[in-house]
Amino acid sequence: MGQTTFAEIVGQAAAAAISPACQHVFMPGYPKAFTMEETGQTFMPLAGIPVSIKDLFDVAGEVTAAGSTVLAAAPPAADDCPAVARLRAAGAVLAGRTNMVEFAFSAVGINPHYGTPINPCDAAVARIPGGSSSGAAVSVATGAAMAALGSDTGGSLRIPAALCGLVGFKSTARLVPRAGAIPLSTTLDTVGAITRSVRDAILLHEVLTAHRVHLPKVALADCRFAVATTGLLDGLAVEVAEAFEASLKALRQAGALIEEIALPELAELASINASGGFSAAESYAWHRQLLADHEAAYDPRVARRILRGAAMSAADYIGLLAARQSWIARMEARLADFDAVLSPTVPLVAPDIASLLGNDDEFFRVNALLLRNPSVVNMLDGCAISLPCQRRGPLPVGLMVWHSGMHDDAVLALALQIEAALQPARGSQSL
Amino acid sequence: MGQTTFAEIVGQAAAAAISPACQHVFMPGYPKAFTMEETGQTFMPLAGIPVSIKDLFDVAGEVTAAGSTVLAAAPPAADDCPAVARLRAAGAVLAGRTNMVEFAFSAVGINPHYGTPINPCDAAVARIPGGSSSGAAVSVATGAAMAALGSDTGGSLRIPAALCGLVGFKSTARLVPRAGAIPLSTTLDTVGAITRSVRDAILLHEVLTAHRVHLPKVALADCRFAVATTGLLDGLAVEVAEAFEASLKALRQAGALIEEIALPELAELASINASGGFSAAESYAWHRQLLADHEAAYDPRVARRILRGAAMSAADYIGLLAARQSWIARMEARLADFDAVLSPTVPLVAPDIASLLGNDDEFFRVNALLLRNPSVVNMLDGCAISLPCQRRGPLPVGLMVWHSGMHDDAVLALALQIEAALQPARGSQSL
Repeated sequence: MGQTTFAEIVGQAAAAAISPACQHVFMPGYPKAFTMEETGQTFMPLAGIPVSIKDLFDVAGEVTAAGSTVLAAAPPAADDCPAVARLRAAGAVLAGRTNMVEFAFSAVGINPHYGTPINPCDAAVARIPGGSSSGAAVSVATGAAMAALGSDTGGSLRIPAALCGLVGFKSTARLVPRAGAIPLSTTLDTVGAITRSVRDAILLHEVLTAHRVHLPKVALADCRFAVATTGLLDGLAVEVAEAFEASLKALRQAGALIEEIALPELAELASINASGGFSAAESYAWHRQLLADHEAAYDPRVARRILRGAAMSAADYIGLLAARQSWIARMEARLADFDAVLSPTVPLVAPDIASLLGNDDEFFRVNALLLRNPSVVNMLDGCAISLPCQRRGPLPVGLMVWHSGMHDDAVLALALQIEAALQPARGSQSL
Repeated sequence: MGQTTFAEIVGQAAAAAISPACQHVFMPGYPKAFTMEETGQTFMPLAGIPVSIKDLFDVAGEVTAAGSTVLAAAPPAADDCPAVARLRAAGAVLAGRTNMVEFAFSAVGINPHYGTPINPCDAAVARIPGGSSSGAAVSVATGAAMAALGSDTGGSLRIPAALCGLVGFKSTARLVPRAGAIPLSTTLDTVGAITRSVRDAILLHEVLTAHRVHLPKVALADCRFAVATTGLLDGLAVEVAEAFEASLKALRQAGALIEEIALPELAELASINASGGFSAAESYAWHRQLLADHEAAYDPRVARRILRGAAMSAADYIGLLAARQSWIARMEARLADFDAVLSPTVPLVAPDIASLLGNDDEFFRVNALLLRNPSVVNMLDGCAISLPCQRRGPLPVGLMVWHSGMHDDAVLALALQIEAALQPARGSQSL
């Protein structure tokens, strides 16, 4: 594979005060040890590891602009937000703030103010990186950082991970503190990381949650996976369909039971969200004054999506909260007998940037397609990991392994097994 | 005092399978024992005790009408709601459904459909019982029940308790399940009981939460109480001012330290709620269709208050949720150094019913005065108990002992001490 993950660097020494890779690097007493809330253990798994920070997180002394120009002259943050503080306490070196979709409100990755990071997987064509954590993914894919702190409201970690050939883990939202991050949707936002491997995703999740992951022992031969057919397999690009089928075949060969199931609840989402959905109403509540004063300075595509929230009534919003709770309960019952669900993360491989720049219809069509599958897990208050599963050619494809809320450790354990099972099928050109 | 509380009946035998008062009453195996979730102990503290049920709770086989005619022909509930199921499992005899303010949306206690329960404390004048748990309070005050299940969104347990000379405990809302109860405000609603004594309140709280109360050892001589001056002492009726001052004097004589403090946060509530508040928006979301179809069948004063919620935008509602969280944090910091806050529960003694029946201005003036003090605790997500503190004359006065959320056990322990300390001052005419 060529690339070294930092989980390989630090090996099993995650709980040591200083990782082996960083011996003799720091003066005595540095980096400072970090005590995990759950275990009381000191924990320095990221000592010396460069981690990039999406532009929506507060870092002490830096301006939090969220990819906008509207906030570019805001006063610098007084303190690190909790997620950044945990990374720093774990020894991470902050590799820099990463570019993003303005205020995180699209999945494509285009930013008209600061330019669009180019997906590094295709040297010939400038393709989108996916978003909204666009610079985050490219920082890891290019080696500028070994992990990237990002956020995921409808897929903003998993979509760029899928399009850039990386791992993106969206944990159950309540597990990582969201304070000190500019919100898109206070209901759906999740803080997490993009990494090169599932092992790295586990380490980052431990640091960001300040809790140890307890990996259950799993063997694929004992696993029962669901493939949800309702909507999630529609209109797959040839590369995606081939890679997804090949992945299922590899997992079946490893002994896993895979069942196609209908998830009729997915067909309800359009009517549940008919009054506008959480992101529009909640972002409008946050941006109302700023938009009134500075609308001309916003990316017009972002302003348009935020302004949709102005029309929602409190009663519709309260009805949406109640409808979501009922929907989650029915989805949880439907998934209870499966170890996880498998889906293509997104139905596309990365389109070229040029086709989307001047064409709003095409932009919003692609945006909706990118969000379609991953946003289901945010609505579910669930957890999901996207890992690379392409077979050949330069363009990555993501396999999403997901479940309802608080199945995080189980999903991570399964993802380790799946990543290993897919390795022979994937690696032919890079090994 | 003349009246026997059931805590006195069952004495220290609360954890026994059948209370001493109920020996030989039931056939073998009945009433069935109830296992507390926290301790695994069997717990039958209410064996044979009559408990009344406010008309908004589901009881299997009965219609839940919430004091309305709109729902009077609804199908009967299939199951007991959790609160009722816990009472029944603890051995309570359901003494009947109690009348209430239609849909719980006022503090006065007037119901135009089913008549207004008359406050039994004054034989000469028909006075309001307070609401919305009007029949609940009167059922206990008259001896028709020994405890009453009710709900409290802005004072609906404490206001009728205060006006009828009873104890009303509004616990931290999350502690008692609210499923199977018609909501007024899903944010503010609290399920709880009206009782004759603090000991009974403690037993009911244990049954309704399915957890043991752990009473910390407290002595009034070690206590530091706050009396909040901002707004809560304005316009007190002479009887209320006298009873409140006499109560503070008795507590000082028992050694308690009592400090008057400003709570400037209370002055913010009007602007925080300027867009309409939780009850209007959340009740409108629940009633929208029913009101559209049957507005003429509603109490016009209730319909008017619900319809105010139609105008609130989602952004205003989301802003209200955020403003409340910030306000709670500042209030908690302000109260952290005190054992509890002491306030008059309401500034009035019970007005006569006739003065309010035909006069909307007077009705809404009295309603706002009754809600002013107790609703602070709902906004705080706190806990509060109202206990009788009148000195003489027939009209009861309530003393509210309150704190922020999850101080329930401490507030109950303090209330036991305060109840005892006020006994000599109160009892002169009834002993």
